[in-house]
Amino acid sequence: MTRTEPAGTPLGDDFHLYDTTLRDGAQREGISYSVADKLAVARLLDELGVGFIEGGWPGAMPKDTEFFARAAAELPLKHAVLVAFGSTRRPGVKAAEDPQVRALLDAQAPVVTLVAKSDVRHIERALRVDVDEACAMVEDTVSFLVGAGRRVFLDAEHFFDGYAHDPGTALKVLDAAGRGGADVVVLCDTNGGQLPLQLADTVREVADRTGLRLGIHCQDDTSCAVANTIAAVQAGATHVQCTANGYGERAGNADLFAVTGNLVAKLGMDVLPTGGAAELSRVSHALAEIANIAPDTHQAYVGASAFAHKAGLHASAIKVDPLLYNHIDPALVGNDMRVLVTEMAGRASLELKGRELGVDLASRPDALTSAVSKVKSLEADGWSFEAADASLELLLRKEVAGPGEPAEPPFTLESYRVVLDHRADGEVISEATVKVHVGGERVIATAEGNGPVNALDAALRKALVPHLSWLDTVELSDYKVRILAGHPGTDAVTRVLVESSDGEREWTTVGVHANIVEASWLALCDALVHKSLRVAAR
Amino acid sequence: MTRTEPAGTPLGDDFHLYDTTLRDGAQREGISYSVADKLAVARLLDELGVGFIEGGWPGAMPKDTEFFARAAAELPLKHAVLVAFGSTRRPGVKAAEDPQVRALLDAQAPVVTLVAKSDVRHIERALRVDVDEACAMVEDTVSFLVGAGRRVFLDAEHFFDGYAHDPGTALKVLDAAGRGGADVVVLCDTNGGQLPLQLADTVREVADRTGLRLGIHCQDDTSCAVANTIAAVQAGATHVQCTANGYGERAGNADLFAVTGNLVAKLGMDVLPTGGAAELSRVSHALAEIANIAPDTHQAYVGASAFAHKAGLHASAIKVDPLLYNHIDPALVGNDMRVLVTEMAGRASLELKGRELGVDLASRPDALTSAVSKVKSLEADGWSFEAADASLELLLRKEVAGPGEPAEPPFTLESYRVVLDHRADGEVISEATVKVHVGGERVIATAEGNGPVNALDAALRKALVPHLSWLDTVELSDYKVRILAGHPGTDAVTRVLVESSDGEREWTTVGVHANIVEASWLALCDALVHKSLRVAAR
Repeated sequence: MTRTEPAGTPLGDDFHLYDTTLRDGAQREGISYSVADKLAVARLLDELGVGFIEGGWPGAMPKDTEFFARAAAELPLKHAVLVAFGSTRRPGVKAAEDPQVRALLDAQAPVVTLVAKSDVRHIERALRVDVDEACAMVEDTVSFLVGAGRRVFLDAEHFFDGYAHDPGTALKVLDAAGRGGADVVVLCDTNGGQLPLQLADTVREVADRTGLRLGIHCQDDTSCAVANTIAAVQAGATHVQCTANGYGERAGNADLFAVTGNLVAKLGMDVLPTGGAAELSRVSHALAEIANIAPDTHQAYVGASAFAHKAGLHASAIKVDPLLYNHIDPALVGNDMRVLVTEMAGRASLELKGRELGVDLASRPDALTSAVSKVKSLEADGWSFEAADASLELLLRKEVAGPGEPAEPPFTLESYRVVLDHRADGEVISEATVKVHVGGERVIATAEGNGPVNALDAALRKALVPHLSWLDTVELSDYKVRILAGHPGTDAVTRVLVESSDGEREWTTVGVHANIVEASWLALCDALVHKSLRVAAR
Repeated sequence: MTRTEPAGTPLGDDFHLYDTTLRDGAQREGISYSVADKLAVARLLDELGVGFIEGGWPGAMPKDTEFFARAAAELPLKHAVLVAFGSTRRPGVKAAEDPQVRALLDAQAPVVTLVAKSDVRHIERALRVDVDEACAMVEDTVSFLVGAGRRVFLDAEHFFDGYAHDPGTALKVLDAAGRGGADVVVLCDTNGGQLPLQLADTVREVADRTGLRLGIHCQDDTSCAVANTIAAVQAGATHVQCTANGYGERAGNADLFAVTGNLVAKLGMDVLPTGGAAELSRVSHALAEIANIAPDTHQAYVGASAFAHKAGLHASAIKVDPLLYNHIDPALVGNDMRVLVTEMAGRASLELKGRELGVDLASRPDALTSAVSKVKSLEADGWSFEAADASLELLLRKEVAGPGEPAEPPFTLESYRVVLDHRADGEVISEATVKVHVGGERVIATAEGNGPVNALDAALRKALVPHLSWLDTVELSDYKVRILAGHPGTDAVTRVLVESSDGEREWTTVGVHANIVEASWLALCDALVHKSLRVAAR
C-alpha cells in the first residue's frame, strides 16, 4: 500500500478518528460487502480524512484476506492507515504458533487491533479460562505483534459491563495490554447499555487508575452511542471508533458523521484535514449507496432533511437570520438548508461538479439554470446522481452543447423485445432482440443471456460492435438495483446503477423506470454514450 | 373527554411523560395526519400509559381544532390528559382579547402548553418587542389561562442558545412564567445543538437559580436528543417531551421509546403504568404504520433488529447466557431476541432460530445436521436467510417433516413466459403467461404489469385465485433486490427479498438466481407456500 505521507499526518497522532465500517459495520443485517465494495469504502473514507480504517479480519474471513492483499496493491491512501482486526491467541498456545495471529501479520497492515474479553463473566463462561490466562493471552499476543513491527490497539470487549461487575479484572486486562506494548486500550460498550454521564465518570476513573491512552467504542442500544462517544472524549479518550452512518449489529454503532460533526462543530477539534468536514454529507451518501441502504434523510448533520425547515412558525424569521434557526452553518458539513434539494442540485455545487467533470458551467448561467432545474426534476422522480458521475456529465454536456456538437449518442434505439422462458423441464432462458440505427444502417440482433439485462446487453453489443470497434473493451463491472417506494398513490420505481470499465477507467451511470429492464437499458445506454464521448475526444 | 381516573394517577404527578407526536412530530417531512389518524395515535399513546398528549394547536390549525372537538366526544382516555399547544398573546393586546389565546380555552383541554421566546435575539429580531414586553406576554397569558382553570406549562423556545448568549433574559422569561402560575417551565433545545454534559450543567444551574419545576424538550441535530433528555432528568428535570420514534423537523426529536426504555430499564423509574413498558415495541410499530413511515429496524429498544445477533463469534455463547449479550431482557420492552443466520452461523444459532420459528431441531440432531449443511450451501450460493424468516421456516420444516406431512406447495409450476416490449413508439409493455397445476387442474393465465415481476405476480394470482380463496388477502408489501457480485464478468447472481402481508402479519421470503425474474419467482412462491401452511394450521 502506498501512502504519500507518514501515518497520522497532517493531523498528528494526538487524536484518532478510527473507522470500523468494514468490520463492525458489516455486522448490520442486510450488509454484505464485496471486495470491490470494501476497496471503494476505504477510498472514500481516506478521501474524507479518517486516520484509521479497520479493513476486516484477515484469516477468519476469506473476503477480508483478499481485501488486504488487493489494498496493498491498489489503494494509494493519502490520510489513513489500514488496520487488521483479530483476536488474541487461543488459550494454551504461543502467539507465534497461532494461525489466526499469523494471518494478522500476513495481512501486512501497519496496525493491528486485537479484541479481548475484559468482563470476568465472559472470561469464565465463554472463553473458559481463568483471569491470569486471559491476561497472558492479551500480553503475549500484543507483545508478539509489537515485536513484529506492528502498532497494536486493544479492544476491551464488554468493558463497561465488566468494570461495573468486577473492576479489578477489567483493569488487569487493560494493564496486560499496556505491558505488552499496546498504544491504545479501547473501552468497548459492546452491549450498548451505557448512558453519557456515568460513562464519562468511568472513563475519567479508568484514565486515572491506569495511565493508559484510552479509546472508546460505543453501540447504540440506548440511542446514546454518539453522545457516549463525545462524553468519553470530554472525559479524556483520544481515540474514537465509529462506523459510517452508524451501521452495525442490533441498533448499530456510533455514527462517524455525527461524531465527527460534533467534534468539529461543537468541540472545535480539527480531527479532519482541511476541507474534510465539507465532505461529510457527500461521503455519507456515497457509502449508503455502496451498502445499498437508503440514506436516512433525518440523519444528524448529513441527512437531506437535517437542515430542512417545515415549521410555519419559523419560516419568515428564518429569512431574516438563518443562523438563529440552525445549530450550525450547514455548509460546514457540506449540507444545504433548502428543503428537497440535495447538495447536488444547488447552483454552486453543480457548477463545481461540472468543473470537476470538465464541463464549464460558470460562463453559461443559462445552461446552469436549466441543468439545475433538470437535475431537481429528475431527483424528484427518483434519479440520483450522487454515485453516477458519468450520467451527470452527459446531462451537463447536453445543456452546454450547441447544435451538431457531440453529446449525441452514437446509435439510436428503434425497439427491443426480451423474452424469458421458464420451461417445463425447469430450464430458464433469456433472449433479447434489439433494433437499432448505427452508422447509417438499421441493425437487428438477437442474443441470449443469463438474465434479461444480460441478454439485452449482449444483443446490443452484437448489433453495435461491427460499427463501434472500441465496444469490445467496455465491460459491465457492477450492477446495483434499488426499489424506491412510491409516493402515496404511485407505483414504486426501480433505480439501476451500472458501473462500466474499459480496463483503464471505471464510470457509473444511472437509469430509473417502473420497469427494471427499461431502467437498466437507460443506464446501459448512458454507459456506452459516455465511452463514445471519450473516444471522440481523443 | 372521559377519563376513568384523575389526571396523573396512578403514577402521580412527580414525573411527566409528555408526548408531542401530534404537534412537533407532525413537523417531520412526509407526515400528514388526518383527524382520524390523530385520534388513533392518541388512543395508542394512552394505552401505553403516557401522562400527557399534546394534540395540536387549536385555532391555528383547523384539523387540530376538529381533533380536540372529536377527542372530547370520542376518546375515553385511561391514563393521559390532552394538552392544547399555543402561543402567548400578541404584543400590545390583552390575553383575554387575543383570539389565538381564546381558541386554546375553546379546545377544552385541561392543560395548555404555551410557547414563548427566551433568547434575547429572537425576542428583538423575530418578535420585535423589548424583553419587558416579552415577559409581560408570558405572565399575562399564563395567569389568564390559570384563572380560567387550566394547568399551564411553558415551552421556553431556544432556551439553551438564549441562556448561553444572555442568561439574564432567559431566566427573566422563566420567572415571568412562574409568577403567572405555570406548573412547569420546559427548557427547549429548539435548534438541537446541545451535548449532554454541558446540558446537564445548565439544567442544574437553572434549577438552582429559579427554583421552578423544569421540563426538557430536545431536538436531535447532534444525534444526542435521547441522551440530552436523560441527562436533563439526571440533572433534575421531572418532565420530558418526546415524539414517537423521534419524528420531528430536521433530524427529529427525542424518541419516546428510547427515552422511556432508558428511564425504565436504566434509571429504574416507573414512568409507565404496570405492563406499559412491554407495549413499547407494539405501539412504536403501530404509530409508524399510522405515520406511513417504514419502521426503523435498527431503532434502539423497539426495532426488529434491536436484539438481533449476527456475529458467529457470539452465537454459541449466547445460547449459554443470553443476558451477557443483551443490555436488557428484550421482553421488558416487548421485543424479541433474534439470531441471524449468516455464513458465520453454525448449529447453535440455527437450533436457536428453529426454536424461535416453532420448529424443534433440538430433539432431531439428524435434521439439524442436514439443515445446517443445506443453509451453508445455499448461503455459499448467495442465499441469505437473515431477513427471510419465512423461507428459513419452510426449509427447516421440510427437514423435520415426515413423508406426506405439509410443507408441500399448494400448486406446482409447469412453465412461465415473460415478454417485455420496448416498442418503436417508446412505450414499454410487460406481459406474463403462467401454466400451473392447482387443485387437480392445469390452468393457463396471462396478465400485464408495470414490469416483469409485477406481470408474473398478476398472472399467477389470476391462475390461482379461483382455487385458493385466501390469496386475495395476501399482498406483496415490499420488494428488495440485491445483485451479488461474483467474479468480474457474468457470474453475478440476484437476490430478491419479498415482504408479504395479509393485513395481520408480515413475512419475508428470499429467492436467488442469475435471472432476476426467476429469483423473484422463487421468493413469490415461498411467500404463498408459507401462507398456505398458516391457513392449513388453522
